[in-house]
Amino acid sequence: MILHPTYDVNAAGHLTAAGLDTVELAREFGTPAYLLDTDAVRAMCRLYKSAFHDFFGPASTPAFAGKALCYKGLYRLIAEEGLAADCVSPGELVTAHAAGFPMAKVFFHGNNKTDADLALALDLGVGHIVVDSPDELEALAQIAAGKGAKPRILLRITPGIDPHTHKKIITGNVDSKFGMAIATGQADSFVKAALACPFVTLDGFHCHVGSQIFDIEPFRDACDIMLAFLARTRQTTGFEAPVLNIGGGFGVRYTERDPAIDYRANIQALGTEIDRMCALHGVKKPAILMEPGRSIVAAAGCTLYTVGSVKTIPGFRSYVSVDGGMPDNPRYALYQSAYTVVNASRAAEKAAFPCTVAGRCCESGDLLAEDVSVAKPSRGDILAVLVTGAYNYSMASNYNRIPRPPVIELSGGKATVAVRRETYDDLIRLDV
Amino acid sequence: MILHPTYDVNAAGHLTAAGLDTVELAREFGTPAYLLDTDAVRAMCRLYKSAFHDFFGPASTPAFAGKALCYKGLYRLIAEEGLAADCVSPGELVTAHAAGFPMAKVFFHGNNKTDADLALALDLGVGHIVVDSPDELEALAQIAAGKGAKPRILLRITPGIDPHTHKKIITGNVDSKFGMAIATGQADSFVKAALACPFVTLDGFHCHVGSQIFDIEPFRDACDIMLAFLARTRQTTGFEAPVLNIGGGFGVRYTERDPAIDYRANIQALGTEIDRMCALHGVKKPAILMEPGRSIVAAAGCTLYTVGSVKTIPGFRSYVSVDGGMPDNPRYALYQSAYTVVNASRAAEKAAFPCTVAGRCCESGDLLAEDVSVAKPSRGDILAVLVTGAYNYSMASNYNRIPRPPVIELSGGKATVAVRRETYDDLIRLDV
Repeated sequence: MILHPTYDVNAAGHLTAAGLDTVELAREFGTPAYLLDTDAVRAMCRLYKSAFHDFFGPASTPAFAGKALCYKGLYRLIAEEGLAADCVSPGELVTAHAAGFPMAKVFFHGNNKTDADLALALDLGVGHIVVDSPDELEALAQIAAGKGAKPRILLRITPGIDPHTHKKIITGNVDSKFGMAIATGQADSFVKAALACPFVTLDGFHCHVGSQIFDIEPFRDACDIMLAFLARTRQTTGFEAPVLNIGGGFGVRYTERDPAIDYRANIQALGTEIDRMCALHGVKKPAILMEPGRSIVAAAGCTLYTVGSVKTIPGFRSYVSVDGGMPDNPRYALYQSAYTVVNASRAAEKAAFPCTVAGRCCESGDLLAEDVSVAKPSRGDILAVLVTGAYNYSMASNYNRIPRPPVIELSGGKATVAVRRETYDDLIRLDV
Repeated sequence: MILHPTYDVNAAGHLTAAGLDTVELAREFGTPAYLLDTDAVRAMCRLYKSAFHDFFGPASTPAFAGKALCYKGLYRLIAEEGLAADCVSPGELVTAHAAGFPMAKVFFHGNNKTDADLALALDLGVGHIVVDSPDELEALAQIAAGKGAKPRILLRITPGIDPHTHKKIITGNVDSKFGMAIATGQADSFVKAALACPFVTLDGFHCHVGSQIFDIEPFRDACDIMLAFLARTRQTTGFEAPVLNIGGGFGVRYTERDPAIDYRANIQALGTEIDRMCALHGVKKPAILMEPGRSIVAAAGCTLYTVGSVKTIPGFRSYVSVDGGMPDNPRYALYQSAYTVVNASRAAEKAAFPCTVAGRCCESGDLLAEDVSVAKPSRGDILAVLVTGAYNYSMASNYNRIPRPPVIELSGGKATVAVRRETYDDLIRLDV
C-alpha cells in the first residue's frame, strides 16, 4: 500500500491502482489519464452513511459535493449508494438530472444564483435551495410565486469560524461572499424574512467552515454557534429548525506528511459533542447533514502521465517534464498543493532522484510538484500523481489548447471509460 | 476613453466597447460574455509589423503567441495581417491549420513535445520547430528520418535573465524547465548536437525572458547575451545563425497604476541597441523575431457579467457577486492580477462604491477583483472587467460545471459570434 489502499506495487515492479497495472492502463487508454477506484469511492460513501446513521441519527445523511468531481456516472454511483447531493450550479443540476439522480435529494448552493438558475432548480424538482442572501430570497419568492411552487429552503448562515486552513478555502469567516453573518445581526433578519415569505418553506440552516480539516474542532465550534442560533431563533420566532447542514470538509492525506484520518471516529466524536450541545442549548437534535466531496473521491483517484524530457541543470535541479500539467491539475499553480509522485514504471525501485515535475504548458508556473523524489525516470516512463480524484478533472481547462484527459473507472479488476478523452475536433467545435 | 481606446461612455451613460453599447450587447448575447475589438487587435498587429520592419529590418517579423488567445477566427485575422504564429501544443497547431493559417509561418514551442506532437508538426508542415532539449532533438531526428523530412529548427536557449516580474512568468532564468542554459555550458553542446544532426536544419536560437515587461532592459540584456552567444558559436563551429527569436512579452496596462507603453518607441530603442550590439560582437544582424500575445489582444478584450447579489458586511466590506468568476478568468486566483472594473450600466456615474467583485463559484478564493470602486450596482446591472483579451478565454475551465462564455468579435460597429457559448449539453457530451 502506498498512502491509500488503492495503490500498491506488483511483481513487475509497476504501480497498481485498484489492483490494475497502471503502466498497462496507460498503454490501453493513453496519457494523461485520470483513474478512479470506484470501489474505494463506494467504501467511503458507506463509511459516511453508516457513521451518520450511528452517530448523527437516522434522519442524518451525507450529501456528496459534486464540485470535487462531477460527471454523469459518478451521480449514478452516488444515487446507488443512497447519498444526497450538493450541487453548486445549473451545470451540476443538469448533470445530476441527466444521470437520473433523485433531485429531491439535491441541495442547491451558490453565493450567486441567477433567476434562470432558480427557475431551473424549481423545474427540476430540487429538494432544497440553500438561499444565500435576502436578495436571492426575494428573487426566489417571485419565481416560485410565478410557478405556483413552494420550494423548501435552507438559509446560508456565516458562523464566523476560522478553521486555520489555507485562506482561499476558508468560508465560515464573517468577511465572506457566502451567507449572512450571525455576528452582524444580518442572520436574524434573514430568518425573519424567510419565515414571513409565503412562497417558501424554511427547513433550517446551512453553514460551511472550510475544507481539508483534520480534526473536529472547527465543526464542533460551528455546531456550538449554530445550535445556539437555533435556540435563539426558536425563542424569538417560534421556529425550530429540523435541519442543520454543516457543510464540508474533512481532510485527505495527500502526502506522508499529512496525518491519516479516521473519519468514523471523528464523526462519532462530533456526534457526541452535538448531543451534548443540543442538551446544553435546549434544542431538539436536528437532522445533521454534511457535504463531503474531497474525502470521498480524492484518495481513490490518480493521474497517469508519460515522461518526456528529463533535464538536469547542474547546481540547480532536475526537471522531469510530463505530457499534462496545470490544465489537468491547476492545484499546485493555485494553492501550491503538495502531491505524492511515483514513477509507475519503476515503482519497486528506490525513489532516489530528487526533481521538480513540470507540466507541458508554456508557463514557468506550470509545475505539478517541486522537491519530490522518484525512481530516476527516462523518456517514456509512466509517472503517477496520487490522490487527484478531487478538484482535478472538475477544475481542468484547455489552457495551451490541451485536450482534457479521460476519466477511467476501476472496479472489480476492470477498467472502463466514464468520461471520454477530448479530441482536437472537440477543441475547435465551438469556433465559428 | 477608459484606459484604452476601445472603451468609452455613451449618451445613455453605458460603457461602450469599440463604439457598441455593452449593456445592449449583454442583452443580445447574454452574460458572461467575452468581447474582442478586432479592429484594435489589427491595429496592434500593424503597429508591431511596421515597427519590426522599420527598426529590426525587413526579414524580421512578430509571431502571435496563441496561448494568450486561440480560436479559429483569430488565426484567420493573424494570417490576414501577415504575422507569423507561435504555437505551443498540437491543439494550437490543429486550430491554426483548421483556420487555413500558413503553417510555414508557425514556430512550434514547448518544453515537452511528445513523439506524436513532433510527427504531427512535420505532417502539418510547421515552419520551425523550437527544440527544447537534446532528448527532444534526438526524438525529432528519428521521426524526421522516418518520414524523410528535414525540419528547420531553432534551439531554445536560456540566457539567464531575471526581468523582475512575477516569479511565475519568469522563464529566462537558468533554473527553468525551458531550454538549455548558456551559463552551464549545456547550450554549447546542444548547438554542436544540432549541427551534427543530418535530419534537421538549424536556423538559429530562441529565448524568452518573461512577460508583462514595461521597458526594454530585459530584452536588451537578453540580446546582448544571445548576440555574444551567436558570435561565440560562429567562432567555435562556423555556424552563423540567421534567426534570433527573443520571445514575448511587452506589458499591458491593466489598471491606471500600470504605465502606458509606447510599443513603437520601445521597438525602435531596442532596434538601435541590437544594431549597436551586433557591431560590438561582430555578428551580422540576424532576422529578429518576437512573440507578442498579451500586448496584441489583452486591451482589446473585456468580459461582461450580470450582477447578482450585492452584500454589505458592516465593519468589513461589500461583495458584488457576478455570474462568472474563476472559471472564465482564473488570473486573480492564480496571480492576484489586478483588473479595472466598470459598472457598464452606470458608467457615467461616479465610481464611488468600494467593493470586492466575487465570482459565483463555491470557493472563497473565487474573486475577480478586491478593493475596487464602481458606481453602486444593483441586481441586474452589467459589470465589465476590462483588458481580459489575453489569458482569460484561453485559460477558462468548467470548474463548478459552469459553461464557458462565447467570444463576441466587435468590428466596424458590428458584433458577431466568433466562439459559441457552451451549453449544458456540451458539458455532459463526453460523459458515458
